[in-house]
Amino acid sequence: MDYYSSRINSLIEELSRLPGIGSKSAQRLAFHIVNMPEEKVKSLADTMMDARLHVCYCKECYTLTDDELCPICKDKARDHSTIMVVENTRDLAAYEKTGKYNGVYHVLHGAISPALGIGPNDIKLKELMKRLLSDVNEVIIATNSSLEGETTAMYISKLIKPSGIKVTRIASGVPVGGDLEYIDEITLTRALDGRVEL
Amino acid sequence: MDYYSSRINSLIEELSRLPGIGSKSAQRLAFHIVNMPEEKVKSLADTMMDARLHVCYCKECYTLTDDELCPICKDKARDHSTIMVVENTRDLAAYEKTGKYNGVYHVLHGAISPALGIGPNDIKLKELMKRLLSDVNEVIIATNSSLEGETTAMYISKLIKPSGIKVTRIASGVPVGGDLEYIDEITLTRALDGRVEL
Repeated sequence: MDYYSSRINSLIEELSRLPGIGSKSAQRLAFHIVNMPEEKVKSLADTMMDARLHVCYCKECYTLTDDELCPICKDKARDHSTIMVVENTRDLAAYEKTGKYNGVYHVLHGAISPALGIGPNDIKLKELMKRLLSDVNEVIIATNSSLEGETTAMYISKLIKPSGIKVTRIASGVPVGGDLEYIDEITLTRALDGRVEL
Repeated sequence: MDYYSSRINSLIEELSRLPGIGSKSAQRLAFHIVNMPEEKVKSLADTMMDARLHVCYCKECYTLTDDELCPICKDKARDHSTIMVVENTRDLAAYEKTGKYNGVYHVLHGAISPALGIGPNDIKLKELMKRLLSDVNEVIIATNSSLEGETTAMYISKLIKPSGIKVTRIASGVPVGGDLEYIDEITLTRALDGRVEL
């Protein structure tokens, strides 16, 4: 691509490394960016760096936030004795959008996958077990209904059950193989309502 | 979206303003970015600013470049007496990819559109006319075959013809490999009108 300037080439290359951005979209984005007002580009670049530098894990639920505790863990009006376990922050966001859940969350940041070499110690599972030492009534497992998600659900339920805490799994109103973040709110709500004890 | 941190929210918002990036993709990109190694985010942010600050118009053909002359205008091996007129730098890139064109280009940065209030003075047309004062044999008009592109092509050809310079228009018709049944009627009509003897 020596018909572009080297700087545009570098930008296209960097952009096309982002997930879901192919070479055509990267080209389109790059040209959009070099035509944007300078202060808008600066704002985008700064926001990116700012987010990267300041975003950290909530020390309670391990969601991505920029404070010690995330807005949900800080909220005294929520039911802190019910913990919904999700794979990542996007899944948490998907459940929050339903507006039907008043408990708190625990973000695993992954799922157990023997195929990918991801074991129980590679996700925030010890951190979940530690939270169960305080007053917890129910753990709702809302990992994806993929092989990894199901494996993780089974593993967690076996781990928790001896403690006597109620462990539930969201109902499979969620289509098998579906990715939680892309599922509509009604399906998610139904899945929550129909949860069964494991 | 108060379940995210305000910094992630700002990033999602900024990203979703980019063309072709909806709110779901913006979310996905934002989480990807906050999980990227810090130096990679810095490199992306810097590349963006660097491209924005240094990219300028080639003083000959007005494509986007970061030098006084773009690599194509600098190239002495190319035929500088044939100028292909395109709407934007992406169209130039598309023709360069064919590897079949050895002339130079002129980038209009737009097309005449009375509906959008874009007139001949809003695109790099005066700059094209100025180039014709030097030794030019042919101007190939390769604006899009949209209403605006056709209007621009007609306008330019009328402007240049009195000078005696040859003006041509790229052929429009059925794309190679295209399935007739999926091609719109206007294209099919053009393909019929422009039929050539075998």
